[in-house]
Amino acid sequence: MTKPFIFGHKNPDTDTICSALAFADLKNKIGEEATPVRLGVVNKETQFALDYFGVEAPEQIEKVEDGAKVILVDHNEFQQSAENIENAHIIEVVDHHRVSNFETREALYFRVEPVGCTATILNKMYKEKGIPVTKEIAGLLLSAIISDSLLLKSPTCTAEDVDAAHELAEIAEVNIETYGLKMLQAGADLSDKSARDLITMDAKEFSMGEAKVEIAQVNAVDTSDIYKSQAEIEAEMEKVVKEKELDLFLFVATDILNNDSEVLAIGSGKDKVASGFAVTFDGNNRALLKGVVSRKKQIVTTLTDEFLK
Amino acid sequence: MTKPFIFGHKNPDTDTICSALAFADLKNKIGEEATPVRLGVVNKETQFALDYFGVEAPEQIEKVEDGAKVILVDHNEFQQSAENIENAHIIEVVDHHRVSNFETREALYFRVEPVGCTATILNKMYKEKGIPVTKEIAGLLLSAIISDSLLLKSPTCTAEDVDAAHELAEIAEVNIETYGLKMLQAGADLSDKSARDLITMDAKEFSMGEAKVEIAQVNAVDTSDIYKSQAEIEAEMEKVVKEKELDLFLFVATDILNNDSEVLAIGSGKDKVASGFAVTFDGNNRALLKGVVSRKKQIVTTLTDEFLK
Repeated sequence: MTKPFIFGHKNPDTDTICSALAFADLKNKIGEEATPVRLGVVNKETQFALDYFGVEAPEQIEKVEDGAKVILVDHNEFQQSAENIENAHIIEVVDHHRVSNFETREALYFRVEPVGCTATILNKMYKEKGIPVTKEIAGLLLSAIISDSLLLKSPTCTAEDVDAAHELAEIAEVNIETYGLKMLQAGADLSDKSARDLITMDAKEFSMGEAKVEIAQVNAVDTSDIYKSQAEIEAEMEKVVKEKELDLFLFVATDILNNDSEVLAIGSGKDKVASGFAVTFDGNNRALLKGVVSRKKQIVTTLTDEFLK
Repeated sequence: MTKPFIFGHKNPDTDTICSALAFADLKNKIGEEATPVRLGVVNKETQFALDYFGVEAPEQIEKVEDGAKVILVDHNEFQQSAENIENAHIIEVVDHHRVSNFETREALYFRVEPVGCTATILNKMYKEKGIPVTKEIAGLLLSAIISDSLLLKSPTCTAEDVDAAHELAEIAEVNIETYGLKMLQAGADLSDKSARDLITMDAKEFSMGEAKVEIAQVNAVDTSDIYKSQAEIEAEMEKVVKEKELDLFLFVATDILNNDSEVLAIGSGKDKVASGFAVTFDGNNRALLKGVVSRKKQIVTTLTDEFLK
């Protein structure tokens, strides 16, 4: 029998990669077989974390076979998962996102908790199983929390995430602030990215009522740097909107130092962004969303409400 | 602020009622407020358990208000839940069924495990929280396990359910076999039920691919007793099929002593029952499914596969 694959969402981020690695480690230590894999390229932020703690990235897969046993971390919506996921046999899910567009034939282990990061749930699962977290795994779990919480500053960050981060930092022997800022800055280096890269490297698709919405997010130290190529980014976004028949494509450039986001909206749903966040686009397709850093807790929720009105 | 309601599915069975009561007890003991409620009439089996352990049935509600905080036990599919559930704020789910037709705006506590009974998960949750189970609650949780597992004999019954049942029987101070058979027999007394009662008292609706399927189940000591009124039962089923535009209405009379089920199928999907279980209906709409007792693990799975073919 082949081992079940464990993977996070497409366009993997640090939580997705590190949670797949950690959960496979935990499974192996309690005597269950599992192989961590990924559904896309490792980004620079994640690579920084992997290099720092000396861990290899998991192998990449493109699709899953009919009937293959799989374990999902950090996502549950099928459109964010592997190709052919609807025909796989999902045996377990560990996630911290809303539940949507998920369906199985039989009961499974399904664990979602409203915390800031999958890694926080996994840290708890190590304790529940009585398995000590190694320095490497602690480093990966901490990196995931720092990434998802923008150094514990995002509104998605809960007291549980903060406690987990401090516990893990001690085991990983790093200073959260110093290490975290270096890791985020490594991820915010977008100098070698094309316009196409920027809008796909961390893009997720959502169903909001009848609407099909894609939201891409990048972290940056200076968002004006990114918008030097606004025209090219828009042209690439237009293509995707047409191709996938999107109602809205929202590109979110998040300033990791000031904790604001400058967004670019393409598609007929642009007015939903304007009304939801009380901003105007002024002929330009860009708007500044003050204090908005979380796709999940601030953007998806607001836009879902707007599209359901 | 009003306390969140905790409830199980429509047409409540013993697991749904007892799990709502037990989870509310656990919540209250860890300092969280919650009120158990139910979405329908308490059946005779459940009433036997409540009377035996001296516990009052929860109040009945008809629908939930927009934005009301609710906690679901023993179900997650919206069509099995309270009226207006899609506009409630679901903060938690504890269940042991497949995940389907469920969607929230934000992350929540969602815990599904592939065991035979919600009560088995709740028994584990008491331990995780370090709260001792009282005699009354142990009795309710045990009754739920006996009910869902047909006295630990159903294929849905896992080793975890069996262990939980033995633990709980000790606290509840009852003999599983003796108490369990009395409870099941109380539920199998259908002498005062009309044909309409029989097909609605434990009916659940399922989406299977494009098909809309309703499956009603009753336990009986002698299934031939039930089918004395086959003509009336069929007439009532025909009405429901028309009303709800069902592709299939399957009525399942389960023999609790021999662990077989005699089914009655109405609707264009009848051939799916024939092909799925390799039986023939022979002009009559009835067939004996040898060894089939579990709606969830034997009937829903088989029919879902047939409808997706």
